[in-house]
Amino acid sequence: MGEGVEWGLHCCLVLAWIGDDEALSTAKLARWFELPPAYLNKRLQALVRAGVLTSAAGARGGFRLARPPEKITLMDVVAAIEGPEEAFRCSEIRQRGAGAEAPASEFRHACGVSVAMRRAELAWRRELAAQTLADLMAEAPPSAPARARRWHERVNG
Amino acid sequence: MGEGVEWGLHCCLVLAWIGDDEALSTAKLARWFELPPAYLNKRLQALVRAGVLTSAAGARGGFRLARPPEKITLMDVVAAIEGPEEAFRCSEIRQRGAGAEAPASEFRHACGVSVAMRRAELAWRRELAAQTLADLMAEAPPSAPARARRWHERVNG
Repeated sequence: MGEGVEWGLHCCLVLAWIGDDEALSTAKLARWFELPPAYLNKRLQALVRAGVLTSAAGARGGFRLARPPEKITLMDVVAAIEGPEEAFRCSEIRQRGAGAEAPASEFRHACGVSVAMRRAELAWRRELAAQTLADLMAEAPPSAPARARRWHERVNG
Repeated sequence: MGEGVEWGLHCCLVLAWIGDDEALSTAKLARWFELPPAYLNKRLQALVRAGVLTSAAGARGGFRLARPPEKITLMDVVAAIEGPEEAFRCSEIRQRGAGAEAPASEFRHACGVSVAMRRAELAWRRELAAQTLADLMAEAPPSAPARARRWHERVNG
C-alpha cells in the first residue's frame, strides 16, 4: 500500500481539526507535512472525486472535509486513494495446463483460492469501514488539535 | 499482492492431492499450470525456506508438503511469498513540518493512523490464519483430486 493512504488520512485529520470554516490549499498541506505538492495534490484530487473532500477555488478556497468526521471511514479514504481493486488478483491458473482437461462445469463456481483470499480482504475492509476519522481524532494526543489550529493561524496570518 | 500467492496456493493444493509419497519438480509444477519455471521456482524456494514445503534432490526428488494440509494455513503461504512486512507502511509524517513543534513525548505512542491501519491488517491476517489448505481441499470440485492424480501418473509414466 502506497504512502498516499498515510498522507490522505493525516490531511483529513488536519482538516477536521481546523474546522469547517477553514480550507487548506495543496501548498499549505504539503508544507504542513513536508510532502511533494504535485504528488500530494493527486491524492487530494482522488479524495475529492470520492466525495471525501470538497475543493473550492479562490482566495478563501482550498480543501475541506465533505462531511463530518464521524461519517468518513478509513475505508472511504483507502478506497479513494488505492482504488477499488482487490489486492489479490486471481488469474485463473486453475484452468490452465492440467486444468484444461476439466469439464467447463467445474469453473462455473469461483476458484476456492480466490474465494478464501477474498474472505480475508473482506475482513480487512470491514475493519477499515468500522473506524472513522472521528475515532482517529479521539485517539490523537490531547494537544494535537490546538497545535494544529495555532499552526494554521500562523501560516494564514 | 503478486500472482505468487495464487501460484503458491495452487501448487500446495496439487501436492496435497498427489499425496505424501509423491514429489513434484519445479518443471512439472510449471507445466501443470503453464507458469514460467524460473519465476515459479523462486516462489517454491520461498515456501521451502518458510517450512511449508520440503525439497529433495534426485530422481524421486522434488517438492512435498512439509506437514499435513490441515496444519498449513493460508497465512503461512502468504507470509512465505509476500514477506512479513505490513502492507501499510508508516513513514511518520506526523513528526514533520508542523509536527516538529510538538513535544517529543507525543510521539512515544504509535501514530493513531498506523495503529488503525494495523488493526485492519490484523483482521486480514487472522482470517488467513483461520483457513487451511485442508479447507481449500474440502471446497474444491469433487473430481479435482482424482484428475490431479491421473495427470500426475501420466506425466510421470
